[in-house]
Amino acid sequence: MHAFAFRVRYAETDAMGWAYYAHYLRWFEIGRAEMLRALGRSYRSVEEDLGVLLPVRDARCRYLEGARYDDALVVETGVAARTRATVRFAYRVRREAGPEALAIGTTLHFFMDRSGRPRRPPAELEALLTLAPLAPPELIAALETP
Amino acid sequence: MHAFAFRVRYAETDAMGWAYYAHYLRWFEIGRAEMLRALGRSYRSVEEDLGVLLPVRDARCRYLEGARYDDALVVETGVAARTRATVRFAYRVRREAGPEALAIGTTLHFFMDRSGRPRRPPAELEALLTLAPLAPPELIAALETP
Amino acid sequence: MHAFAFRVRYAETDAMGWAYYAHYLRWFEIGRAEMLRALGRSYRSVEEDLGVLLPVRDARCRYLEGARYDDALVVETGVAARTRATVRFAYRVRREAGPEALAIGTTLHFFMDRSGRPRRPPAELEALLTLAPLAPPELIAALETP
Amino acid sequence: MHAFAFRVRYAETDAMGWAYYAHYLRWFEIGRAEMLRALGRSYRSVEEDLGVLLPVRDARCRYLEGARYDDALVVETGVAARTRATVRFAYRVRREAGPEALAIGTTLHFFMDRSGRPRRPPAELEALLTLAPLAPPELIAALETP
Repeated sequence: MHAFAFRVRYAETDAMGWAYYAHYLRWFEIGRAEMLRALGRSYRSVEEDLGVLLPVRDARCRYLEGARYDDALVVETGVAARTRATVRFAYRVRREAGPEALAIGTTLHFFMDRSGRPRRPPAELEALLTLAPLAPPELIAALETP
Repeated sequence: MHAFAFRVRYAETDAMGWAYYAHYLRWFEIGRAEMLRALGRSYRSVEEDLGVLLPVRDARCRYLEGARYDDALVVETGVAARTRATVRFAYRVRREAGPEALAIGTTLHFFMDRSGRPRRPPAELEALLTLAPLAPPELIAALETP
Repeated sequence: MHAFAFRVRYAETDAMGWAYYAHYLRWFEIGRAEMLRALGRSYRSVEEDLGVLLPVRDARCRYLEGARYDDALVVETGVAARTRATVRFAYRVRREAGPEALAIGTTLHFFMDRSGRPRRPPAELEALLTLAPLAPPELIAALETP
Repeated sequence: MHAFAFRVRYAETDAMGWAYYAHYLRWFEIGRAEMLRALGRSYRSVEEDLGVLLPVRDARCRYLEGARYDDALVVETGVAARTRATVRFAYRVRREAGPEALAIGTTLHFFMDRSGRPRRPPAELEALLTLAPLAPPELIAALETP
């Protein structure tokens, strides 16, 4: 999967001393944006030049171990599934120093035009997503467990 | 379920014009806190007086319709499932003006003492959760669909 | 000044145990939005129906005492100064239970049309702001101290 | 001043299409944390190893030009003033591609021990701050204008 390094900021911690749970969804956003950029086209360009938006239909995060202020983390992102109308990304958040996941998650997106109507992705975006790293089967399986 | 009214703030909107997806998890936090308060004990008191924390193990949100700046919304909260070691809450976000869900979601929590060890909830908290409104079966079913 | 009650949410606390300093600017946003609503026209309607936006040019907050999770607070909002092109709001954050300020602050806004050009406010907005409560001189003076 | 590059994330934009004003204070936090790290000791280590916290007493931001989603920005941080009990940092946010400031700001901090009492900074922290880059006089002057 594509890996992007970042740090937990004070703004993201809570009174328990851990990164607040909603921020993982922001980290997933960063993960998929940086994965697309690494493939050659930013998500901003997907919106502005291809006229396609990818709103989130579903999001899930499983929290395995907390993260503290200033921890050096990595968000890994890959494609978990694709249909004509949707794409599902999977994520793994881990420490920069080790392979164990702190959290795993997934987001499901559909393709929408500027007027808010669902649409099929243009060929350039299809091609881009075909090049994307795939989420490993064991990650997808772990996310499908209830 | 317990209902708590709030408004979408500018800080919560994004460049698409909709409430950003991670904020729904913050709204879920508000929903469960206000549900507990309505039952007679604030979550703060659960932490401070009972010495029990409820970290999130798993969170999910399904987004059905977007929310705009200043929309008057309601977050409804109920208990979806309980075990000796965990409690699962379910949520429905809707407009104040109507019953259709904009989003549905769930969070799974375990009971932890201040030193970070899992523990069984004290009797007072058990009693409180027994009094909590139950999430309707159709909401739980909808959240179990992959 | 106009008073609006709210609570500090877990999402807003940080690892020091206090509400994180940037959230006060969000609370100021809530304060001015609710002050406008109380005067008879929501900020959303100012944007949508009058076609005027009020971007922030300058913001300041002085932190006097911290706020903890679940604290019941009030944000008070008033007009501190007006010119043909700008309006300055002043704020005081206090506990619901007492008059002492936890924080005081100010934001300076200019009037902008949808195309991003500065403009004079329409008569309806002028009239609305004329009705707004005034920030007390001692609050304005306190905010002007370096 | 110390320079740290970052991007505007979707989570940070608002319905106007610009980065929301409160997030600049988060970027200032990142700026001062990374400036300290570049000097040889992380802010986390200041808290954990030196036992000193630096709560914010005052924050100000002047917004000169908006930032859009995915804009590549830099936050520059330097020391603007020091007393025995406080330190003031100044900031400039600019595009990676150019020198013009999008925003300038300042935060005033005091030194506090873990029990919440003001204290003088230990010698190691004094030494660290003495090594810090200084904010240029024209930035300090610009921030002192009302």
